[in-house]
Amino acid sequence: MVTTIALLGAGRIGKVHAKAIAEDKRARLVAVADAMAPAAAAIAEATGAAVMTIDAIEADGSIDAVIICTPTNTHADLIERFARAGKAVFCEKPVDLDVARARACADVVREVGGRVMLGFNRRFDPHFLAVRAAIDDGRIGDVEMVTIVSRDPGPPPAEYIKVSGGIFRDMTIHDFDMARFLLGEEIATVSGTASVLVNPEIGELGDYDSASLVLATASGRQCVISNSRRAAYGYDQRIEVLGSLGSVSAENQRPVSIEIANKDGYTRPPLHDFFMTRYTAAYAAEISAFIDSIENDTAPSPSIEDGLMALALADAAVRAVKEKKTIAVG
Amino acid sequence: MVTTIALLGAGRIGKVHAKAIAEDKRARLVAVADAMAPAAAAIAEATGAAVMTIDAIEADGSIDAVIICTPTNTHADLIERFARAGKAVFCEKPVDLDVARARACADVVREVGGRVMLGFNRRFDPHFLAVRAAIDDGRIGDVEMVTIVSRDPGPPPAEYIKVSGGIFRDMTIHDFDMARFLLGEEIATVSGTASVLVNPEIGELGDYDSASLVLATASGRQCVISNSRRAAYGYDQRIEVLGSLGSVSAENQRPVSIEIANKDGYTRPPLHDFFMTRYTAAYAAEISAFIDSIENDTAPSPSIEDGLMALALADAAVRAVKEKKTIAVG
Amino acid sequence: MVTTIALLGAGRIGKVHAKAIAEDKRARLVAVADAMAPAAAAIAEATGAAVMTIDAIEADGSIDAVIICTPTNTHADLIERFARAGKAVFCEKPVDLDVARARACADVVREVGGRVMLGFNRRFDPHFLAVRAAIDDGRIGDVEMVTIVSRDPGPPPAEYIKVSGGIFRDMTIHDFDMARFLLGEEIATVSGTASVLVNPEIGELGDYDSASLVLATASGRQCVISNSRRAAYGYDQRIEVLGSLGSVSAENQRPVSIEIANKDGYTRPPLHDFFMTRYTAAYAAEISAFIDSIENDTAPSPSIEDGLMALALADAAVRAVKEKKTIAVG
Amino acid sequence: MVTTIALLGAGRIGKVHAKAIAEDKRARLVAVADAMAPAAAAIAEATGAAVMTIDAIEADGSIDAVIICTPTNTHADLIERFARAGKAVFCEKPVDLDVARARACADVVREVGGRVMLGFNRRFDPHFLAVRAAIDDGRIGDVEMVTIVSRDPGPPPAEYIKVSGGIFRDMTIHDFDMARFLLGEEIATVSGTASVLVNPEIGELGDYDSASLVLATASGRQCVISNSRRAAYGYDQRIEVLGSLGSVSAENQRPVSIEIANKDGYTRPPLHDFFMTRYTAAYAAEISAFIDSIENDTAPSPSIEDGLMALALADAAVRAVKEKKTIAVG
Repeated sequence: MVTTIALLGAGRIGKVHAKAIAEDKRARLVAVADAMAPAAAAIAEATGAAVMTIDAIEADGSIDAVIICTPTNTHADLIERFARAGKAVFCEKPVDLDVARARACADVVREVGGRVMLGFNRRFDPHFLAVRAAIDDGRIGDVEMVTIVSRDPGPPPAEYIKVSGGIFRDMTIHDFDMARFLLGEEIATVSGTASVLVNPEIGELGDYDSASLVLATASGRQCVISNSRRAAYGYDQRIEVLGSLGSVSAENQRPVSIEIANKDGYTRPPLHDFFMTRYTAAYAAEISAFIDSIENDTAPSPSIEDGLMALALADAAVRAVKEKKTIAVG
Repeated sequence: MVTTIALLGAGRIGKVHAKAIAEDKRARLVAVADAMAPAAAAIAEATGAAVMTIDAIEADGSIDAVIICTPTNTHADLIERFARAGKAVFCEKPVDLDVARARACADVVREVGGRVMLGFNRRFDPHFLAVRAAIDDGRIGDVEMVTIVSRDPGPPPAEYIKVSGGIFRDMTIHDFDMARFLLGEEIATVSGTASVLVNPEIGELGDYDSASLVLATASGRQCVISNSRRAAYGYDQRIEVLGSLGSVSAENQRPVSIEIANKDGYTRPPLHDFFMTRYTAAYAAEISAFIDSIENDTAPSPSIEDGLMALALADAAVRAVKEKKTIAVG
Repeated sequence: MVTTIALLGAGRIGKVHAKAIAEDKRARLVAVADAMAPAAAAIAEATGAAVMTIDAIEADGSIDAVIICTPTNTHADLIERFARAGKAVFCEKPVDLDVARARACADVVREVGGRVMLGFNRRFDPHFLAVRAAIDDGRIGDVEMVTIVSRDPGPPPAEYIKVSGGIFRDMTIHDFDMARFLLGEEIATVSGTASVLVNPEIGELGDYDSASLVLATASGRQCVISNSRRAAYGYDQRIEVLGSLGSVSAENQRPVSIEIANKDGYTRPPLHDFFMTRYTAAYAAEISAFIDSIENDTAPSPSIEDGLMALALADAAVRAVKEKKTIAVG
Repeated sequence: MVTTIALLGAGRIGKVHAKAIAEDKRARLVAVADAMAPAAAAIAEATGAAVMTIDAIEADGSIDAVIICTPTNTHADLIERFARAGKAVFCEKPVDLDVARARACADVVREVGGRVMLGFNRRFDPHFLAVRAAIDDGRIGDVEMVTIVSRDPGPPPAEYIKVSGGIFRDMTIHDFDMARFLLGEEIATVSGTASVLVNPEIGELGDYDSASLVLATASGRQCVISNSRRAAYGYDQRIEVLGSLGSVSAENQRPVSIEIANKDGYTRPPLHDFFMTRYTAAYAAEISAFIDSIENDTAPSPSIEDGLMALALADAAVRAVKEKKTIAVG
């Protein structure tokens, strides 16, 4: 049986998911909705899906699942609507910028027994999965300290910053989820610092572009997150986990792995300069996992609760920086 | 206008090409032929192509091009038939194990003005392409010495060795083509050694499993090729080019790029263990280049002449090892 | 003119300094003092120095300088005595475990116009020096974020922990100094966490064995320090500095740089397992710099004030962890 | 008992050996001879050795050993004289440019029961020693293929080329010795090519500046040597050994191991630009081994016979290139 899927939001990430569905024989993209008609039409043409309204998709009993790639402020509403409609839901992070709203949404999902998966794509990156597998296989003993370096090639436009919810809810949220994925224990406290080093405009909007955070679990496991909105050498995504028996790390990915040596030294090309090319395999794998969850009737992971936890950590980070305190996570 | 393509041979490499066609909007796989009916049927089902006989494909005026993935001893005949039929031809290497037969085939192609591209997939590997681009951009000055390390994870079965034409025509042939691709000047001489270090059965069949060759051009540019049928750590594919201003090299590719550090040291996982996973991108890119050549009516590259040159080098290598001499290439 | 030097303390670090002096033609080790007679005698025999008491060294007008490698609790007294005696002083870190006592000592040094250099050997590591040079040469633009990973191969014995002053004054103190060396601006705040993950005995003594700290300067530059008393793969000493135009990093050093590849992957040997073998070149270079300072009558660097600053940061770290607050550094 | 040593030849390599002796407590440099009086005087002053004539050194019964660093054309004579005089001899490679003369010298040494060690310093490089140890420990199984890349930063002056004996006797000779050190079986044949790509003057003198050689043993083990007189990125010295169970390799050494990442990519500094800085540790270790051999009355290694074998391989290489044949080594 083929799982029929509708895509809500036909922007750049919507296109990525449409492609992933097209390459998975177990599913078919049957509908696409977007406020921008040409965007929806383009995906429809490329995939054979129908352009439909969100209402029509909701009403269509033959559609099994939706993938939500619309603006953040619509996520919680759409999750609730489609969970109530009995459809499986995959939603891009975050559930909402407001943790209370997100929690209310999660309550609805629980009530109606909805199947909701959150788009923390990095959990599906083959390299990060291999890090996690090394931990699970006991190859580094007990996890003690996680180090996450996560830096964008360059800052987003001010327009985006305004609606992003701030660096912690927009960018670090992936790192919070990764920390939870690797630490093997819930995070109890957050401390750290943040500042504006890249673009003063970001500071004028009340946000930061550079942050260093320290997370700790109840048993004392630690995680350091280093974020910047600018890395001249590309999209910098590294992970290292120290355990009692050793460490495991995932290096950056490069589009080409050549090296030129001359009188000035040995030079390798810069990293990927865009998250979509860096995480191509991860995007495909997360959609595959979503279909798995539907086909096998298993709990989706990462879940909406994972989304809540990451949001709570973002809130704690905001307070830690502002109040200059180590914040206990609720 | 969409290019219509037929696939001759539905084995493992045929499947790879079928997938590449499916992902390229400019082309459509319309037919597949194979002596093994289930193999053809499987690809037909996955792609919507029709199962047809080779005769029917030849006769079908609506088919623009064929991709030949049948056994080596059929290549020359099929190239001639389909070139005469006015269809564009993509053929896996080699043209034939016998250089005279291959030359005759190339003559026919020339006579009828056929479009024939040879399947030297490595020319399309993004990393090797970047090596070539660095040379073309003048980043290492004049090319002086090329080093190619090319080792299989393990030896093929004796059955395969028997029909392979020997290590130089089967395995080194890719390296000969790569040497020509990088040296920027035709190869004038071949010398070297070969022996049986991996599997005595290979020796009993009159073949070698380990070889070290030195190629030279008229102006004195040099190339070293190191081949083995066994590399315990995976499919080892490295290239380095020394020039007057420096060098450029392409490192091995790995399925996952993690590293585990413990009391025994720092360990990264083995390489790819199969040429198809190593060269996934290259296979797609060569089919794309074939379609480019048809769409834009440009000369296909690598051409059947490139196939002849690689075969001539293989013959020279056989003689160099047997006669213990530096052999001038015809 | 040859600078004559006396060594106070003939332990393992004393031996390292004695060797450095022996290899520098501009200086001569003329005296050695140690409460353990055999230790002093061994160095005396190896170098031709005389075994003397500390009092006799102080009284000997022909001795130009002293190198203090005695237990920490004697440092401040000895610095004061020999500064008053008009001798140049090189002292191992820290000045004292108590910042007030250290400050008083620095006051004395200032009063008497003493020449005192502190033993922050890592500033002289050729790799870290190259990191600093890259910054000074403008190759990474403005410094924004420093990352220091500093992990010991294994925890010291409980006996040592008791007198060490705690992880921040004993181990992190080097990282505090390195942070100041690289940030280009004084550190204004410290936050972070620490815990006992390696050895419960360390916790029972009121100390930590694992720590993650975040430092920030007034302008918002940040530094992350990751410390552990245990790294199964060796003595882990890495530095990375992110700037507006790029980053510069110093990798770990290895005793041998071979790599073995087999069916289990690619393995490089572990790191150095001891700080003395890791920092061999740095130890020699710092003594050379001390002699430079004497010969050229230039201000010694790192100075006793650098020692005070590092101590103040250690105190701030203790408070940050205990009070769960971001601590402003005095 | 301290071994007393005289140094014959006070050039740059003589200075290196003098320093090694000074740092080894088991030996003392007591005499130095050189046709250039100031050179001898400089080393004498630095070490406390006496300036003496070669005759006087020969006659001095209190001198245990000599280190010969004089021009190549004096090596064989001096080895014979000092072997007859009953002194242990360490001699820089080669024994002589003429293999017959070298063989006669070896005969004399054998007759008089002399102790002669040859200066193939690379055998003592810690990284290459670790490669050999990995082989000896069975970590890569049976040795099959050795790859040696050995390239100088830039060509020597024409004056040097004239007296060097040609690239194979001057430069490749080290690689021949290393091949023997690693192959575990004598080399039976040599083939390959050589040309002039770097400096036409070298060609006018009848020599080559670029060479690719293939060596083979009787059982079929293979070795590839890649030589160039120019590598813009520094002194390139790499070794890789493929065995039945895997491979072991030694990477290049770098003066500093930093990496700068910016918009142009990731850049590490060039390699060492001089063999003396690259092989500092090896030079010290070979002198230490020489002293070991004297102290423990064990056979010196590498021996004069090792010197003969390397010379014979150089002769074979000259013929292989000139006669365009695979040459059997006598």
